[in-house]
Amino acid sequence: MSQREREPENEQAATPPVPRRRTGGRSARVRDAVLTATLDQVAEHGIEGLTIGDVAARAGVAETTVYRRWGTRTALVADAVTELAAVGNPTPDTGSVREDLQQLAEQISHLISRPGIARLVGTTIALSTDPEVAAARHRFWNDRFERSSEVVTRAIERGELPEDAEPREIIETLSAPLYFRLLVGDDPIDDAFITRCIDNTLTLHGTKG
Amino acid sequence: MSQREREPENEQAATPPVPRRRTGGRSARVRDAVLTATLDQVAEHGIEGLTIGDVAARAGVAETTVYRRWGTRTALVADAVTELAAVGNPTPDTGSVREDLQQLAEQISHLISRPGIARLVGTTIALSTDPEVAAARHRFWNDRFERSSEVVTRAIERGELPEDAEPREIIETLSAPLYFRLLVGDDPIDDAFITRCIDNTLTLHGTKG
Repeated sequence: MSQREREPENEQAATPPVPRRRTGGRSARVRDAVLTATLDQVAEHGIEGLTIGDVAARAGVAETTVYRRWGTRTALVADAVTELAAVGNPTPDTGSVREDLQQLAEQISHLISRPGIARLVGTTIALSTDPEVAAARHRFWNDRFERSSEVVTRAIERGELPEDAEPREIIETLSAPLYFRLLVGDDPIDDAFITRCIDNTLTLHGTKG
Repeated sequence: MSQREREPENEQAATPPVPRRRTGGRSARVRDAVLTATLDQVAEHGIEGLTIGDVAARAGVAETTVYRRWGTRTALVADAVTELAAVGNPTPDTGSVREDLQQLAEQISHLISRPGIARLVGTTIALSTDPEVAAARHRFWNDRFERSSEVVTRAIERGELPEDAEPREIIETLSAPLYFRLLVGDDPIDDAFITRCIDNTLTLHGTKG
């Protein structure tokens, strides 16, 4: 949870109504510890088992600190989701659209296979009538789409994809079957399936124009 | 919630460990009322607002009846999900694969746009470590795949799809982008999008072999 890949301008654009004091040092460490504890707690006990007291204890910080900074547990879930989108997923830039799509698909596959992520995703859908959670979900997906779209834009520049290729549509074609397997829950996301997702995406979008 | 499309043999195969006494009449009416109340209650208040007392009150039955028949609220959610898969979605058989896929996509679109369904789907994902809920989710998707696969099988017989067309793969290609929009939550499922999903499915699977 400590690696930061987000550019400063994205960071600002994505800032939720949750107070963030990035003074580095202790403040940043507290935030990392609390958000990691939130993810772990939801993973193990679901939203029903998520209390600010438990999160504080798990993070090793005072309960009042968590209350002061996040206020509610939906704010915690929202911020944890935003964090999840921001870290550990550098936008691929290998010089080949197929290899870039491969890396994007593997990032999604790793995210989905992370313990408790199904629970977190389910929780954010279930809580989507909560404005804070809905906003976090919106930020999460916008962030994912925005970063991934750079892959498509560069492929157009290299002539690997047609001029009129729609970045969001292409990323949707690649991502949807992967996330659908998370939804269904029975079928594995293996190498063969990832290859099929990429082949299908390039068949549908690579030869137009 | 009263229309039954499931064949008796499927009904038996899909029977959960939840007692069902299909004596018709009062017993069936109680079940319908309780499961409808469960869906409505989850839709409005989420799993956290789901208590057996509230469901019983909403369904107009005694709390002891709900306890005796379902026992736990996860059993209620599980049975409601199973019910959702079983009713109101006859397998299309129009004589044209495109028209059949259109009807399947519209069924999914209607299901997804039903109030509270995002909450129910999210809840079943979030609760997927619960064996009863996991089993219900498994039944739901298996039932959906099985019915939809008949569309592909008939299209192969008519020569509209190649002999080696994989029913589950084709239904996955059609369904994934629709459910992905439920997951993302921002983009609408309109006629143009449904047409694109069908076009993509036929492009990828219709011209092989």
